[in-house]
Amino acid sequence: MSKILVMHGPNLNMLGTREPEIYGSTTLADINSMLEAQAAEAGVDTEFFQSNYEGALIDRIQQAPGEGIDFIILNAGAFTHYSIALRDAIASVAVPVIEVHISNVHTREEFRHKSVIAPVVMGQILGFGTDSYAAAMYVAIRKLKG
Amino acid sequence: MSKILVMHGPNLNMLGTREPEIYGSTTLADINSMLEAQAAEAGVDTEFFQSNYEGALIDRIQQAPGEGIDFIILNAGAFTHYSIALRDAIASVAVPVIEVHISNVHTREEFRHKSVIAPVVMGQILGFGTDSYAAAMYVAIRKLKG
Amino acid sequence: MSKILVMHGPNLNMLGTREPEIYGSTTLADINSMLEAQAAEAGVDTEFFQSNYEGALIDRIQQAPGEGIDFIILNAGAFTHYSIALRDAIASVAVPVIEVHISNVHTREEFRHKSVIAPVVMGQILGFGTDSYAAAMYVAIRKLKG
Amino acid sequence: MSKILVMHGPNLNMLGTREPEIYGSTTLADINSMLEAQAAEAGVDTEFFQSNYEGALIDRIQQAPGEGIDFIILNAGAFTHYSIALRDAIASVAVPVIEVHISNVHTREEFRHKSVIAPVVMGQILGFGTDSYAAAMYVAIRKLKG
Amino acid sequence: MSKILVMHGPNLNMLGTREPEIYGSTTLADINSMLEAQAAEAGVDTEFFQSNYEGALIDRIQQAPGEGIDFIILNAGAFTHYSIALRDAIASVAVPVIEVHISNVHTREEFRHKSVIAPVVMGQILGFGTDSYAAAMYVAIRKLKG
Amino acid sequence: MSKILVMHGPNLNMLGTREPEIYGSTTLADINSMLEAQAAEAGVDTEFFQSNYEGALIDRIQQAPGEGIDFIILNAGAFTHYSIALRDAIASVAVPVIEVHISNVHTREEFRHKSVIAPVVMGQILGFGTDSYAAAMYVAIRKLKG
Amino acid sequence: MSKILVMHGPNLNMLGTREPEIYGSTTLADINSMLEAQAAEAGVDTEFFQSNYEGALIDRIQQAPGEGIDFIILNAGAFTHYSIALRDAIASVAVPVIEVHISNVHTREEFRHKSVIAPVVMGQILGFGTDSYAAAMYVAIRKLKG
Amino acid sequence: MSKILVMHGPNLNMLGTREPEIYGSTTLADINSMLEAQAAEAGVDTEFFQSNYEGALIDRIQQAPGEGIDFIILNAGAFTHYSIALRDAIASVAVPVIEVHISNVHTREEFRHKSVIAPVVMGQILGFGTDSYAAAMYVAIRKLKG
Amino acid sequence: MSKILVMHGPNLNMLGTREPEIYGSTTLADINSMLEAQAAEAGVDTEFFQSNYEGALIDRIQQAPGEGIDFIILNAGAFTHYSIALRDAIASVAVPVIEVHISNVHTREEFRHKSVIAPVVMGQILGFGTDSYAAAMYVAIRKLKG
Amino acid sequence: MSKILVMHGPNLNMLGTREPEIYGSTTLADINSMLEAQAAEAGVDTEFFQSNYEGALIDRIQQAPGEGIDFIILNAGAFTHYSIALRDAIASVAVPVIEVHISNVHTREEFRHKSVIAPVVMGQILGFGTDSYAAAMYVAIRKLKG
Amino acid sequence: MSKILVMHGPNLNMLGTREPEIYGSTTLADINSMLEAQAAEAGVDTEFFQSNYEGALIDRIQQAPGEGIDFIILNAGAFTHYSIALRDAIASVAVPVIEVHISNVHTREEFRHKSVIAPVVMGQILGFGTDSYAAAMYVAIRKLKG
Amino acid sequence: MSKILVMHGPNLNMLGTREPEIYGSTTLADINSMLEAQAAEAGVDTEFFQSNYEGALIDRIQQAPGEGIDFIILNAGAFTHYSIALRDAIASVAVPVIEVHISNVHTREEFRHKSVIAPVVMGQILGFGTDSYAAAMYVAIRKLKG
Repeated sequence: MSKILVMHGPNLNMLGTREPEIYGSTTLADINSMLEAQAAEAGVDTEFFQSNYEGALIDRIQQAPGEGIDFIILNAGAFTHYSIALRDAIASVAVPVIEVHISNVHTREEFRHKSVIAPVVMGQILGFGTDSYAAAMYVAIRKLKG
Repeated sequence: MSKILVMHGPNLNMLGTREPEIYGSTTLADINSMLEAQAAEAGVDTEFFQSNYEGALIDRIQQAPGEGIDFIILNAGAFTHYSIALRDAIASVAVPVIEVHISNVHTREEFRHKSVIAPVVMGQILGFGTDSYAAAMYVAIRKLKG
Repeated sequence: MSKILVMHGPNLNMLGTREPEIYGSTTLADINSMLEAQAAEAGVDTEFFQSNYEGALIDRIQQAPGEGIDFIILNAGAFTHYSIALRDAIASVAVPVIEVHISNVHTREEFRHKSVIAPVVMGQILGFGTDSYAAAMYVAIRKLKG
Repeated sequence: MSKILVMHGPNLNMLGTREPEIYGSTTLADINSMLEAQAAEAGVDTEFFQSNYEGALIDRIQQAPGEGIDFIILNAGAFTHYSIALRDAIASVAVPVIEVHISNVHTREEFRHKSVIAPVVMGQILGFGTDSYAAAMYVAIRKLKG
Repeated sequence: MSKILVMHGPNLNMLGTREPEIYGSTTLADINSMLEAQAAEAGVDTEFFQSNYEGALIDRIQQAPGEGIDFIILNAGAFTHYSIALRDAIASVAVPVIEVHISNVHTREEFRHKSVIAPVVMGQILGFGTDSYAAAMYVAIRKLKG
Repeated sequence: MSKILVMHGPNLNMLGTREPEIYGSTTLADINSMLEAQAAEAGVDTEFFQSNYEGALIDRIQQAPGEGIDFIILNAGAFTHYSIALRDAIASVAVPVIEVHISNVHTREEFRHKSVIAPVVMGQILGFGTDSYAAAMYVAIRKLKG
Repeated sequence: MSKILVMHGPNLNMLGTREPEIYGSTTLADINSMLEAQAAEAGVDTEFFQSNYEGALIDRIQQAPGEGIDFIILNAGAFTHYSIALRDAIASVAVPVIEVHISNVHTREEFRHKSVIAPVVMGQILGFGTDSYAAAMYVAIRKLKG
Repeated sequence: MSKILVMHGPNLNMLGTREPEIYGSTTLADINSMLEAQAAEAGVDTEFFQSNYEGALIDRIQQAPGEGIDFIILNAGAFTHYSIALRDAIASVAVPVIEVHISNVHTREEFRHKSVIAPVVMGQILGFGTDSYAAAMYVAIRKLKG
Repeated sequence: MSKILVMHGPNLNMLGTREPEIYGSTTLADINSMLEAQAAEAGVDTEFFQSNYEGALIDRIQQAPGEGIDFIILNAGAFTHYSIALRDAIASVAVPVIEVHISNVHTREEFRHKSVIAPVVMGQILGFGTDSYAAAMYVAIRKLKG
Repeated sequence: MSKILVMHGPNLNMLGTREPEIYGSTTLADINSMLEAQAAEAGVDTEFFQSNYEGALIDRIQQAPGEGIDFIILNAGAFTHYSIALRDAIASVAVPVIEVHISNVHTREEFRHKSVIAPVVMGQILGFGTDSYAAAMYVAIRKLKG
Repeated sequence: MSKILVMHGPNLNMLGTREPEIYGSTTLADINSMLEAQAAEAGVDTEFFQSNYEGALIDRIQQAPGEGIDFIILNAGAFTHYSIALRDAIASVAVPVIEVHISNVHTREEFRHKSVIAPVVMGQILGFGTDSYAAAMYVAIRKLKG
Repeated sequence: MSKILVMHGPNLNMLGTREPEIYGSTTLADINSMLEAQAAEAGVDTEFFQSNYEGALIDRIQQAPGEGIDFIILNAGAFTHYSIALRDAIASVAVPVIEVHISNVHTREEFRHKSVIAPVVMGQILGFGTDSYAAAMYVAIRKLKG
């Protein structure tokens, strides 16, 4: 059975409580439930992970191949813009990664337009609210089903 | 019945013949057929348009509201990187636009990393090959179905 | 009898329907009527042209000398910021050109602050709403009456 | 009765003596007379002020509301390019300001292309020789007459 | 009773041992004691936190609202210059933050002149040695006392 | 008896009348009164000076040592961002200077983020409204009392 | 029989009438005649195309392989500096392209120093007046003759 | 007896499994063994530390003086390029640090050319594969032996 | 009889009291005396002027031609680096100007390397201490004597 | 009889031995022979010069007019990108210079895109392998023959 | 028998006489003796070369393969920062090159941080005083011994 | 007896033949004679040196101290703008250097505004034609005479 790991970076645990005009009132638990259901319907397993520690996210990515993860859906939050260490972790594993952002980062501050992980992920989906995650799951499943 | 307009910018008519190591061998007609089927299954109408003329793309976007278009899926090709006129056209209509790229532009030349239309579209999907279009259609339908 | 050509670039055909908080609700036809009357009062003929095609605007500028045009009032819209071809067309004819913008572009996005045609026009008038056109017509007539 | 204040920045008192190939041989007094007549014809009062002191220009702008000034026509000369203090003075009064330049600054040195006051004025008119002032007066009167 | 959280970022635990010509010989414990006394005199509670882990600082900021913290005084150390994740954490809580630096960062290396957290804090105090903390406490108490 | 000079740069005489959403409705006289009282309580004399003239501010700073000034609290307004002459004046006297800003300049226009005087002052306090001045006075007195 | 397509971009139809101090008084027809003769002498066929429309140039390049074109000599005019769509068109066909400029672009405005098509053409010839075309034809024939 | 601490930053625990065309197939354990032997031969003790956590690396550097470490050999991995906190930690201890990179970073992505720790280390050795570590150990021993 | 005007910009009245390690202990009066003697020996008259006001320096330069000044020796101090108004004043008079600096500005802060007046003066002399003035006087006299 | 000097800059003596995938296996002697024959056929004399010394190339260019050289064909190699002294030498002689590059420099490293000599040569030919030299000879002869 | 060529660029002949606080008092002869001994001990031959002429260094590098040189240790001095010709020479020979610097260039002027030869050498060693050379010899021997 | 070395860089041997509108028709021999006479009058010896070779200029500067040179007057020509090796040579000798330029480099191309040797010379004199040399000699003698 295929397995998809959904990872959330720093401050995403605050989702639903912070700047709702940008991110909406959905919580991270809501998103995870939605994705779990979407994957289950396609017969795919899911795991979820959130951390405010760059090191913890790196550790988790490194362990993914050993745990049989087939795809990673990653919203790296603020680390997207400067964590070259996270980028190197992604590049060091063979598991494909989909980069996700809830908001359209290109309508926000200049420094959010740049992603240091973009060149090492498979693709990006951004700007659709929590539907960004759903679309990422859609693509991951589609790729897994071939 | 909802209607989605799929637009392709310059050189995308060459798809399947050009740089297959980047874009694959699927033709534009193949993509359009796939999207038409995907939409039909959800009970949504589709229209398709391709042009190498910036002015033609602008004209078509301006006409979209009058033709009852509910969503636009747009692969603006090279215009993505410099056509401010196309950007203004998108901003001038109320129809939401999804920006699509077949390849992961962030692994290509520096000038392809920047999109002048990104700040006026709803969101971006890129890097998944022709599945980028499929994911865009998935999101558009999901938004239309509420 | 003197003749003034008023040219409008891409998306200006949408005037009155698009972003009214920036451009107001006056339509392009309203502006043309106003300018035609203003010119007629001074005994000056007018012609009007709008296109979303860069090539069409270039063609029209090239034809202007052969049609006895004495002055061009040009709102190049988004082409203002990148169309070096339009700039070359202006530079290639002896007819003086007045660059016009409805809004104060310097209060908008950074990329709108720069005009690639500014160095080859006679002068610029911007920020006065549709009165920018009226002021341009005032100057053109004043120069013609000399 | 409406009142318009015409302000001239540093070195404009030299007009007619300096670089006539750029500015022509008209003196500042000539310009003021022309504007006074133009305004009088429309039943509008005028006042004139010139200084080489940034502080003096700021003082005068601050006093304008208290003196019943309805519009300011300002050629800030070299201060255009670096006087943020002048910019703040303009922003601190409710009186609308029209920025004027005699020459087409975009055909001159790079540093003259930028105006730090542009984002806080109503609009800009430049490049028409002393007719730039006349056009500014035309717009001011038009706005005052509504 | 009001409560103020004083946070110290990476390497500030070394205070008093490191580069004394820049930071003086006062230790972090000395500073905390001084601030505790200053707050107590005004009838305000204090808490103190130091970490070399970005993730630990983010966690602590996220917990602040739940612990009844009314104000945060934050010396983010080197994180000041690149931790967008810390910035997002600050922006995600309603508790006002005062940014503090012991030295005048503008007399040091170029990269220390920029603070990525400055746009989301209430204000900055820097350059007064350990008195920077005292002044921050003074302002926080003043704001709390209304 | 110690003496502190409080200096206000261009347009600060307009305080309370200009952009109240940024600066509030307190007038400069209010601020001066508040500071005078705060200083008097600590047995410290105060003097106050405001000018829209860069030269006047420079003259005043040069005279400070001869008048027995022990500390200068300076809100240089717009001169903060470009007056190297003011910077040189500060560097030429032994009297320590505290740079103050009412608003958090880092949330405003890009050009307000940079202070050319920052490298020659003792420290900066900004963003606390008129409390920025109070905190500066607090630090100055604290330093004078040793 | 080999066939060479000679393409001219925007405003080159004005050749001989525009800025003769830069381009000389030779017309486009003169150049085409010269090249036709030069090619005929070597037993090579020629075709000629000029347009002010970026889209038209792209269409023509895409059709070249189907028409048995063996070499393209291209003076892209102003499009040289910003038309990424033209660049993509060149890259999408297997026909080798020689980039030609009449003037030495490196002695003109800064923005003319850069060619966005240079990285996808075989080589560049510029600065020799209409002899630039002749040299391009010389190289093309030499390459065809092997 | 002298003691040298060898530190490895993020993702270096993956050595031998990741991008072998750049780093080779030697594992981190292999390197540590090699260095331990090289040091032992010179009568020098060694300790080894690896972490994906910036905070953990900082903690370890701060503890080094207290543990009698005489030299640190540091491959900071991706932190090399942005961790100012790590830089400050290095600067805060008196123990000399040698910066090491396995690959020649100057032949890789632009962002890898810059090291924020370079100005606070004793020197750099890079590009020799795992021999970079050996050369660092050679220098450290040479310096310790005087 | 020829006449040379020696002008000193902001803060130069402090000479001899400020940063003596850069400027030495010579006062402005000392310099003026030295120059007066040097000129007198050559039968040339001198005048001297110092101000901290940009406007005052501009006024003085504008008056120079009317007062029969043949040469201006100008140390513009900090205005050197940003006063475009001063530059315009210099350009507006036919009197040749020699730019002088006491210190070698190229060994000081980056912003002191640039002179906005350099392109409109005859030449520059800098770095020789007060001998910079003497050399300027030497050149001026030499030019006057032909 | 006309005479053309062919000059080769640093490392071009290695041609045929170095990076053959970029430059091919033709040696410098081969190229010189080919050019000598091509010129002889047109009744034109040739001379050849290669040096790795910037000074030697400058000396040779300075001597060219005295030796009756009518045209210089110059491949300046790496000096193309930084030798302003070579540029000045070219500018100091009346002999026209054609700049040649074997490879298409615009497809190589960024720093090879810029030529500091381009603004002082007649024109550039690049990217055609050794045919770049042949085309340069073709143009030179054509110009000499008028 | 293996042979290593040690090359020293401009001004390194002054070593021991110039800026001893940066380079120490060791002369170039001292360094060469040290290296000769170190190599001899490993049974490796050495040659030494120093020149202030860029051309001479290039010539020497080109001759190295013909002389049986197996490794080059190169301190290119100031040429490190701009000599693209030297870079090309290194790239044109198959002999591996180790770049050496005595001082830590990253603690010196900004322009010394960049090495144009870094991308074509095997690796870099810098900052260890004359031990930088010793470490380079250590690596070269280690590589030669396999 | 004091001795002054006058050095001229690349292409200055062409003086009087090249671009006379910038440099005049005086030859290098004329300048040397003038300086020799000026020095002799003050009882000072002179030597002269010109080369187009960077290495030759460096050698000569290194030899200066051994030859009893007290001052160097240096017009480095184009090397001024990029020869860091020349800069290092100047910095490596204790002899003071005066940098001279005939023309006002700040009115010429952008790249001539920057001098890489400026930070290591005593001072600069530029823009006075051949009088720049005379003024340099004047200062050198003045410094030598104390």
